[in-house]
Formats: sequence, structure tokens, C-alpha cells
Amino acid sequence: MKARKLQRVVIVGAGFAGLSAARALARSPVEVVLLDRNNYHTFLPLLYQVAAAKLEPELLAYPLHRFQRKLANVRFLMASVKRLDLVEQVVVTNNALIPYDFLILASGSTEKFSEIPGASTYAFPLKTLEQAISLRNHILNCFERAAHEPNASRRQQLLTFVIVGGGPTGVEFAGALVELICSTLLKDYPTLDFQQVRVVLLQAGSSLLPHLPKWLQTYTERKLRQLGVAVYLKTRVNLVTQEAVHLLDGGLIPTETVIWTAGVQGNLSDLMARLPTDSAGQVAVKPSLQVESYNNVYAIGDIAAVKLDGQKLPMLAPVAIQQGITAARNIARQIEGRSPLPFRYQNLGNLVIIGRHAAVAQLGKLTFAGFPAWVLWQVVHLVKLSGFRNRCLVLMNWIFCYLFREHGVSLVLPKEPMLTSALRPQLLLRLHGKTP
Amino acid sequence: MKARKLQRVVIVGAGFAGLSAARALARSPVEVVLLDRNNYHTFLPLLYQVAAAKLEPELLAYPLHRFQRKLANVRFLMASVKRLDLVEQVVVTNNALIPYDFLILASGSTEKFSEIPGASTYAFPLKTLEQAISLRNHILNCFERAAHEPNASRRQQLLTFVIVGGGPTGVEFAGALVELICSTLLKDYPTLDFQQVRVVLLQAGSSLLPHLPKWLQTYTERKLRQLGVAVYLKTRVNLVTQEAVHLLDGGLIPTETVIWTAGVQGNLSDLMARLPTDSAGQVAVKPSLQVESYNNVYAIGDIAAVKLDGQKLPMLAPVAIQQGITAARNIARQIEGRSPLPFRYQNLGNLVIIGRHAAVAQLGKLTFAGFPAWVLWQVVHLVKLSGFRNRCLVLMNWIFCYLFREHGVSLVLPKEPMLTSALRPQLLLRLHGKTP
Repeated sequence: MKARKLQRVVIVGAGFAGLSAARALARSPVEVVLLDRNNYHTFLPLLYQVAAAKLEPELLAYPLHRFQRKLANVRFLMASVKRLDLVEQVVVTNNALIPYDFLILASGSTEKFSEIPGASTYAFPLKTLEQAISLRNHILNCFERAAHEPNASRRQQLLTFVIVGGGPTGVEFAGALVELICSTLLKDYPTLDFQQVRVVLLQAGSSLLPHLPKWLQTYTERKLRQLGVAVYLKTRVNLVTQEAVHLLDGGLIPTETVIWTAGVQGNLSDLMARLPTDSAGQVAVKPSLQVESYNNVYAIGDIAAVKLDGQKLPMLAPVAIQQGITAARNIARQIEGRSPLPFRYQNLGNLVIIGRHAAVAQLGKLTFAGFPAWVLWQVVHLVKLSGFRNRCLVLMNWIFCYLFREHGVSLVLPKEPMLTSALRPQLLLRLHGKTP
Repeated sequence: MKARKLQRVVIVGAGFAGLSAARALARSPVEVVLLDRNNYHTFLPLLYQVAAAKLEPELLAYPLHRFQRKLANVRFLMASVKRLDLVEQVVVTNNALIPYDFLILASGSTEKFSEIPGASTYAFPLKTLEQAISLRNHILNCFERAAHEPNASRRQQLLTFVIVGGGPTGVEFAGALVELICSTLLKDYPTLDFQQVRVVLLQAGSSLLPHLPKWLQTYTERKLRQLGVAVYLKTRVNLVTQEAVHLLDGGLIPTETVIWTAGVQGNLSDLMARLPTDSAGQVAVKPSLQVESYNNVYAIGDIAAVKLDGQKLPMLAPVAIQQGITAARNIARQIEGRSPLPFRYQNLGNLVIIGRHAAVAQLGKLTFAGFPAWVLWQVVHLVKLSGFRNRCLVLMNWIFCYLFREHGVSLVLPKEPMLTSALRPQLLLRLHGKTP
């Protein structure tokens, strides 16, 4: 037993799925190598709050070196995977070749622009910390530029924000954006006419939050409208340009800000693995989460197409976490010479926040909305957030926002040049309004 | 009185000097336009803690739109000044021409590389939030790369950090960097040999902190050496390359990280003003802080060369703040037809922090060091920080660092590509150390 070489499990991706698998393997007699492009795990469910200038981006990042400290057999390596060689059993990264005995693919998902022309160029995705920061900077820049803009229709364009997709991210971001505008920006830009500000939510389907019961959908739509969000159902985008969103029905919304939350796909292409994927870019797996024809390769989280009762499981953190545990257990079983067991999904429910005191919740057959759902949403997200320090600081941020009705983070890091399309050095400053 | 047009004061730069002037003008019958490149004021005295991954960068940024809210006659504009026309009395920015009756120049200082070849290309300055973030990312990247580096001398080079300049910023950063390394990185990289890590502080003069009494200098040097910093006095840099620092005495320190805190100069060049400056790039001003030959133009803060008793005042926040108040008062006097009064400086003292329970303080003739100075440093910096929210979050960060001996922020935002000079895809991963 002593001289026996430990088998090596390589995990590609340190999202919810990858971390959960690494944690579950901690007590198994294996050595685990966890790979990620970044040296931190991102708590994606709160990412939209970074884009809405409510949270500092660092608070959603949990250092992976800190994660590995607690797990004696786990080693984290910051590396980009360049290629997977499933035959030779080697992962090729930008700085090493890593042989494996077992491989867990958990590289997550990326935005899917569904072949809408212009979307990949002009729409803002919201899947990484950097994307959230750049969206935040862009939104604050739009207000800054609008404050200097003498042309009313240009100003209208700068102050129109279009969110594509009526799923949880779209709904939560729409609510948070209105909160940012009404709580903070309204006071920051006293010369702007806030009647001009428009937050538009476009949903292709006939209801928001399609995965929830009807009454919660109606509640969500009513609440968003009360907040001032223009909700358009059964509305499809045809074309995105730098200046506008063109709708399939011929409509046009002039805007410089299109936020794309309409779809995600498995993030496999970068891995250069010759694995068959479905239309959503997800890898087909057996009920045990093993990849077809490779018994020592598992796919979990957003990248895996797992069907239960004929229905594909949604790309959600709880699904990813549960699959990580199953993959880890099945690897342990394989090492012991036992056969892997099928994955069983326990649906823990759904929570979506809309705004102050407004959220919807579904726990099994129990559904509720309003204040209790709003409290529950915050408690669950705080508890699930990694790191005691991050948890305390996020809580403090939320308390500040709640008490002072003010978003703290309104910093533009000027990565992008200001006033790209509106450089008018000859304009004489109009000092409208505001005299003592 | 009612119909009389208000005179307009334009303030260029929203650092300590500019904000202080704007605040002091709040009760005068003038309209104030405050200009800055960024939409936030940066609390520079804590900047090095961002570079040392101790504080989130957003916590040092105070939104200028929020600042203007409280002051009815102040309007903030985010703009880059392109040119000053002192004859026509117009400030030309990237998006407007702004005529003024009075102008306050408060554009601060930039790093001065004293004509050392390579310094401006390869050394890291520490004057803006972005610079602090990029230095933090670089340092964390060096550890990440060192963990993969099989060559011992390359590893030594990656783990050597050279700070040029033994003034307050150099001393404080050296202490904070050692703290980061010993508290956090030591645990994050269990496979690295920390005997290889070197923090070097180079000082051209014969003592650290030249502005302080002798015994505080000795205390500082002793404390830094105890922490493990290699302090070299009377040591001048001759050349900086990507791989090393070359010293004037012929010595060479292989390193990829040179932090430049050795000198600053007035930040006037960007303004394209034809004003005479001294060797430090500072504008000569009369005792009233008015610029020679322009009675309606004031220069304050780091950009102004103000001599008291034959000695030029240092570039410090308290100097800038007091000058802002004097400039504001003198403008009010000019409007009332009275003549401006000379600036009087009240030296409030000096505080420099070195490490845990170690700091030096000079308050008038009173000097002390150690725990009381350390407490005082933190209290003063917390009180001076702008924004109640920032203050609470910084305090919380400090408490965490103190209690858990752990720097919270250790996030690398991958702006720079990883492993630029060390891309070795064919290297087989060596899994040194760490087996369960």
C-alpha cells in the first residue's frame, strides 16, 4: 500500500463543478491537480452586482491557492488548457504537460450569441469578472457622456440600456440596474433628465423566468414594470450595431448598451478535444457522468449534457455542485474496482431577486414571493459565497446599499478612452441648471 | 447683487489640493467647476496597500459626483485637460472649452525617473490606482511563475523585488510586501523555497526617511531589517532592464520587479501651459500661491513650488490641503477687492508605518515609535479617508489582516499574458513536495 503510486485526477476548471469535485476527492487515495486560467474561483451568481456597481469585483473572487491549502492532496495550477489528448491521457497547458489517470472536464460555459449578426461584437456578455467590470465602466461612461451631450436624441441613445434575455440573469440585472440609476446616478447627475433613462428587457419567449410557475412569472413582470423596466415579451433580436438593437418585427431601439444574457453554451472549443457535442456545445455523458468511450473521463457542470427523465438539466450551480460529488465518488469506486453509479439530481429550488423587498422563490412545491423570498435570496447567497472575509464584506456592502440607498462602487477605471464617438473639442461648455 | 453674474473658478485636478479648494469655495459667491481625468478622487496615502493586495482598489476611490452633491456651487466634470490658454482665460479639455475668471492648478505630480535608462520602461511607478493594480498583478504573477520554474536562478530572479527610494512610500511598501509574502503567499505556495524570496530597498541617500529625526531613521532601518528587507543605503541605480537592476557601484540584482518610489515631479507637461517650472517640474508661485504674472491663476499642491524660510515644502497631502484653503480664501478676497494673503504652513507632523505594531511618528517636537505610532497611523488614515462606507470597509479589511494574518485580495486579473518570457509547453509537470 505504501509504495503504490497514487493515481492522478486532473480537473479542468475551478468553477462550482470543479471545486465540488476537488473537495469530494479530498478523502480519496488520489492526487488531484486542479487547473484554471485564473487564480481565483468566481462566484457567478452575484456577478451582475459587480456590473451594477454594487460590489467590488474582488469580493466574488476566492483565491484558489487558499482553497488548496485546506486539502492536502489537491494542488492548484494556474494554466490555460491548450489541448486534451484523451488517448495518451495528457492535458497540454500553456506551461506544462500533465499526464492523468482520471480527467474531470468542468470548464463551464460561455455566452452564446445564437448567430445574431453584430451581437458578438457589440453586445456585452456577463460571464466573467472582467466582463462585469467592463460593463460597469461602460454604463457609468454612458452617463458621463450623456451629461455633456447637447443633442437630445444622442442623449436618449446613451441613456437607453437593453438587456436581452428574460432568464434569472436578465431579470436580476434589470432590477439592479434600475436600483443603481435611481439610488446613485440620479443624485450624481443632477443636470440629466431622468425621464430619458430607459431600461429595456427583451425576452424571446412568452414569459420571463420560463423555469418557474406562472404566478411567479407574472409577479416578476409586474414588479419589473413597477420599477420602470420596459419588458417586451415574444420579442426577438435581429441585429445588433454600435448604435442600436434591431428587432425581428422591424422595431429599432437606439442604444450603445446591449447586455446579452440570452444564452450560454458549453465551453469546450478552447480545449481542442475531439468529443461529440450537441447544439448547446455540451458533451454527451452516460448516466454516471462518464464521457462516451472514455471510461476515465468525466464531464460535469455546464459542459455536460445530462438528461434526467428526458429533460436536460439546466446550467445551474446546484447541478454543477452535485455532479462534482458524483464524479468524485465514481472515480473512487473505479479505483476500488467497483462500477460507477448513475447521477441523481436533487432539485433544491429556485430563487430570483428583482429589487428591494422583491424576489421569487420556489422550494419543491412551495412557491412564494416578496419580502420573505428577498430575505431568503440574500441569506442563501451569503452562505454559499466562498471565504469568510468575502462574506462579511459583501454583507456590509448590502447593508450600506439598503440603509443609504446608494451603490458604493462608482468608479470608472479608464481602460477605454472616454468619448470615443463624441469627441467635440470645440463645444463650449453649457453649464445647465445648478446655480447656488 | 441678484442679477450679477457669478464669477467662475475652474479647478484642474481633484486630488487633495483641488478638493480642499473646492470645499473651501463652497461658501463663496462663485461657481466652481472641478475637472479631473477620473470620476473619482484617489486616497494616495494608502495606494501601496492596493499594490500589496491588502485593500480592494475601489475602497480608495471616492466618487467625485458624490463629492459635488454636498456642495451646491460646485460642478464636477470628468475631462482631460488638453491645453490652458492663460491669455484668453480658457481651459481646453477633450470635450469642452471652459472659460474661467479664476483658475486653480492642482494637477499633482507624476513619477520622475531621473534619467535612469530603462527606468521609465521597466520600473513600476506607484502613483495611480491602475498602476497599483498592475503592480499587484505582476507580483502575484511572479510567484505563480516561480512555482512552475525549474531553473533555480530564474526562480531567484522572479522572487526578487527591488524597491527604489527610501522615502515614506518605499518604506511602507517594503513593509507591506514582506507582510503579504509572509502572511499569505508563504501559505499559498507550499512548494516554493521562501529562502529565495528577497525584498530589497535601495536608497541613494545615507539614511531612510530623510525628513525625520535620526533616531526614527535608525528605528525604521532596524525594523525593516528584522522583517527581512535588505536595506542598501548610499546606493544609486544606474540602469534598469527587464531582467535586472544595475547599480552605480557596478553591482547587479537580477529581478523582474523594480518599484520606483524615488522621485516625483509636478504634473504640468500634459497641460501644455507655458509656465516656467523648476527642476522638479513645479510652478513658481508668489507667497499668495498666485502664479507669476497671472493674478487670477493659482497653483497648489504637488505642482506648486512654495518656499518657506528658504526651504521648499514637501509634496504631502497636508501641504496640499492647507494650500487649497489659502487659494480659496485669496480668490474670495480678490473678488471682494482685497489683496491676497501669503500662505502659512502649519506642520502637523509625520507618520510612517513599517509593519505590524511598528511605525514612527513625529508631532512637532514629540517623536515616538512602535505600537502607539502604529495605532495613531491607522486612526489618522481612517479618519482622513473619504466616505463613510470606504472607511468602514477599509477598517474591516485591516481587522481581518490583523486577526487572520492574511491579505484578502489575491486576485490576478489577467490583463497581461501569463508566462511571457517562460513559455515552455514541452515541460513535464514536476509535482514537487506535497503528497498526502
